[in-house]
Amino acid sequence: MREKIVITGAGLVGSLLSIFLAKRGHQVHIYEKRRDLRTGQVGGGRSINLALSDRGLKALDLVGLKQKALDQVIPMKGRMIHDMDGNLDLQPYGNKGQVINSISREKLNILLMNEAEMNGVLLHFNYKCEEAVLHERKLVLVSPNGEKEKIKADVFIGADGAFSALRGSLQKTDRFNYSQDYLEHGYKELSIPPVNGDFAMDPNALHIWPRKSFMLIALPNLDKTFTCTLFFPFEGSPSFSELDNDKKIRAFFGETFPDAVPLMPDLLKQYNENPTSSLVTVRCYPWVNDRFLLIGDASHAIVPFYGQGMNAGFEDCTVLSEIIDTNEGDWDKILSEFQEVRKKDADAIASLALRNFIEMRDKVADENFLSRKKIEKELHAKYGDRWLPLYSMVTFSDMPYSEALRRAYIQDEIMAEMKGASLNELMESYEGMVS
Amino acid sequence: MREKIVITGAGLVGSLLSIFLAKRGHQVHIYEKRRDLRTGQVGGGRSINLALSDRGLKALDLVGLKQKALDQVIPMKGRMIHDMDGNLDLQPYGNKGQVINSISREKLNILLMNEAEMNGVLLHFNYKCEEAVLHERKLVLVSPNGEKEKIKADVFIGADGAFSALRGSLQKTDRFNYSQDYLEHGYKELSIPPVNGDFAMDPNALHIWPRKSFMLIALPNLDKTFTCTLFFPFEGSPSFSELDNDKKIRAFFGETFPDAVPLMPDLLKQYNENPTSSLVTVRCYPWVNDRFLLIGDASHAIVPFYGQGMNAGFEDCTVLSEIIDTNEGDWDKILSEFQEVRKKDADAIASLALRNFIEMRDKVADENFLSRKKIEKELHAKYGDRWLPLYSMVTFSDMPYSEALRRAYIQDEIMAEMKGASLNELMESYEGMVS
Repeated sequence: MREKIVITGAGLVGSLLSIFLAKRGHQVHIYEKRRDLRTGQVGGGRSINLALSDRGLKALDLVGLKQKALDQVIPMKGRMIHDMDGNLDLQPYGNKGQVINSISREKLNILLMNEAEMNGVLLHFNYKCEEAVLHERKLVLVSPNGEKEKIKADVFIGADGAFSALRGSLQKTDRFNYSQDYLEHGYKELSIPPVNGDFAMDPNALHIWPRKSFMLIALPNLDKTFTCTLFFPFEGSPSFSELDNDKKIRAFFGETFPDAVPLMPDLLKQYNENPTSSLVTVRCYPWVNDRFLLIGDASHAIVPFYGQGMNAGFEDCTVLSEIIDTNEGDWDKILSEFQEVRKKDADAIASLALRNFIEMRDKVADENFLSRKKIEKELHAKYGDRWLPLYSMVTFSDMPYSEALRRAYIQDEIMAEMKGASLNELMESYEGMVS
Repeated sequence: MREKIVITGAGLVGSLLSIFLAKRGHQVHIYEKRRDLRTGQVGGGRSINLALSDRGLKALDLVGLKQKALDQVIPMKGRMIHDMDGNLDLQPYGNKGQVINSISREKLNILLMNEAEMNGVLLHFNYKCEEAVLHERKLVLVSPNGEKEKIKADVFIGADGAFSALRGSLQKTDRFNYSQDYLEHGYKELSIPPVNGDFAMDPNALHIWPRKSFMLIALPNLDKTFTCTLFFPFEGSPSFSELDNDKKIRAFFGETFPDAVPLMPDLLKQYNENPTSSLVTVRCYPWVNDRFLLIGDASHAIVPFYGQGMNAGFEDCTVLSEIIDTNEGDWDKILSEFQEVRKKDADAIASLALRNFIEMRDKVADENFLSRKKIEKELHAKYGDRWLPLYSMVTFSDMPYSEALRRAYIQDEIMAEMKGASLNELMESYEGMVS
C-alpha cells in the first residue's frame, strides 16, 4: 500500500530513511528547516567530517549506495597517538583491512539527497516544524514565506536531530521520559592545511593527542587538509574560559601540542573565530506516539567519541526497514516494535560513547590499556569472533550495541579478576558467562 | 536595599518564600496562573493532603506561622499496616511524641497567601508566565485579559511547580541539564467518609495497604474523612488499564483491600470519575541563570513517597534565607551559592523518595525489614542521635538530605555485613565510617 510519509529533517538520517521508504513505493516528503545545502554553504556548528564504519556501510549497501560513499572516504586504519614530545605510535583499530572511513558530512548528505530525489522523494526546504497535532495526525509547518501550513500524513518521522522540534511536541504529552545531559567539555574545530600540496601527516589514521582530561584529534579530508577538534573543559584549569587571550592560547598549544602547532599557521585566528560548541546526550522514551516516530539523534543523540552517531542513525534505518518487511502495512505494529527492539541499543551506544571519551583522552596512553590490547589481540587471533575486543564489536560488527556492552562488562570483569591467567583460562571463563 | 522580586507561582513554596522576602523589606510580586483559590474551589489533580514534618515546620516557624499551621493538622504517629485479612499493625515513625502531620494543601496555601498579603506581598492571579527574556532581565506574562505584559525586576524566582514555565525558558539555553522520569505507577484519589459522625479508622496514623507491587494509603482530614490514594501500575496485571469495567474494579478491591471496601460506599463512582495522574521526578541544573532562580518543585520535583515534597520546598526557603543573611544585597552570590549548596540535597531526597516507594508498598510487610527496625530502635535508644534510623534523619531532623543518604548507605552496608553482630560492634563499625 502506498502511504504518505512525512519526515522532518533532510540531514543524514532523514535523507537515507526517505530512500528506504521511497524504494518501497511510499510517497515521501521531507521538510527541512535550512536551505538546500546543494545551493551553497550552510552554516551549522556540526562537525564537518565523520567516521563511517560497518553499521553505516551496511545501511548504505541496502539502498545501493555503499560504493558511492566509499568513493569519497579516506580510510583510517588506526589511532595515531601523539605524545608530548611529538613521538608517534599507531594503534590499529582491528585486523588488517579493518578501517573506519573519514567522510565529509556535506558530501554524504548531498549524495543521499540526490538519491532520494531520484527515487521520487519530495524535498521541501526552508520549512520549519512548528508542532505536531497528535490527535489529528497533522503537522504544523511554517513555510518559506512565513505562513503556517497544516499537513496530514499516514506516518510522521522526526529525523530532525538532537534538538528535534517534533520531539518538542511529544515531550508535552504525559509520561514522556526525557533527559538532556551536557558534558563539562565543549569542542572547537581547527584546521591543518596541506604542506607542499600533500597531507601534513599520515592521512590513513585518526590522530589523537591524548592529554588525560582533554584531547585534540584530527581526521583527514579529501582536499588534503585535516579537521582538528579540541575537546576541552569549558571551565577550570586548563579550559576554554581560562584561555582568554592570544598569549595564553599560544603558550598552551605550544606546551601541550608541540608537534601540531607548526602545522596550524593560522591557529590564533581560527581559535578566536570558530565557535565553541557543547556536547549533549539526549535520551527519551517513548519514541512513538500514535503514528509519530522519532529516529536518529532526535531520539538518541550521543557524544561523538565512538564515531557512532551517524552509524547508529543509519542502523536505525536498517532495523526499521527489517521490521517493515515482516509487518508490511501494519504501521502501529511497525512503530511500536521498532522502539521496543531499538531502545536498549540506543541506550547502550550512548553509554559506550561516554565511556570512550575517557579511553581516547587518557587510557590510550596508559600501559595497562596497552597490555590489555595485546592480550585481547591474542585472544581474538586464537578464538576468532568468540572473543572480539569491544571496539571491534561496536565498529566492525552489527551485533546489537546492547549485546556488545553486555559482553564488554563480562570481559572487564574477567580481565580484572584473572590477572596473569592463561588465554585458555580467560576464554573458558568468558564462555561460561556469555552463553 | 529594597529590591523588586518577582515570583511565579502562588503555591505553597512561592507563597512562603514571598513572606521571607517581604519581611526583609523587599517589594515582592507573585504572578499565579490560576485564579485565587480563596474565591472558590480550584481544580488541579494535585493531592489534597500532605504530611508536614520537621523541615517544613522549621521554615514556618521562621516566619511565625508554625503554631497556626499546627492548629490545622492531624498528627499521625506511625504507619498503620493493613494486611490482606484486615489485620492491623501500628509501626511508630519515631520516638514517643515524634509525628508527621496531615494537613490540607488548600488550607495551608490560604494561610500562607493571607500572611503574604499582610506583609505587603502583591498577588496577581490569572497571570500566565509566557517566557523569560534572560538578557533583558524581564518576564513576559499574559494578563487576565489576554494581553502580554513585559515586567522588569531585580530578581525572578520560579516557584511554579514541576511543569514550571520559567524553567521552560532556562531549558532553551545551552548546557542546561534536564531530566523528567515518570514512574510506571500512577495514582488515583478516593475518599472514606465519616461513620456515625466520626473517623472510620484511627485518625492518628497513616494507613497503608502494602501489596508488594502497589499500595493503597489513607491520610486523615479535619472533616473526619480520609483521603485514600491508590498507587498502581498504569499497564500490566493488575493495573489501571486492566480494571476497565465495574465488575473488575469491584472484584479487585474486594480481594485486595477487603477491610477498606466497606468504608468506601461510592467506590465505583469515585474510581470512575476521579482522574488517574502520573508521578514524575524532575532534575535539572543549573537552577540559576543571571538573576533567574528555580526553587521547589520547579527545580526538583519528586515522587511523594517520603512525604518530603513540600517539606523540601519549604527547606529551600530556609536555606535561601540563611544565605541571604550572610550575603545581604549581593544577589549574584546569593543565587549561585544557593544552588551550589542545595543541589546535592535535592538529588538526595529525589533518590530517597523513589526508594521509599518500595519500602512502603513491600518492605513494611517484610520480616527482615521489621527485625532491622527493631535493631535500629535499640541502637538509637542506646546511642541516641549517633545512630538515627534513616526515616528519622529525613523526617525528624534538619540534617542535609545528602548527609542522611550518605549515612543510610553506610548503615545498609554495615547491617548487611554484620549480621548477628552485637550493638556495640555495629556502632563501632558505623562510627569508623561516618566520621
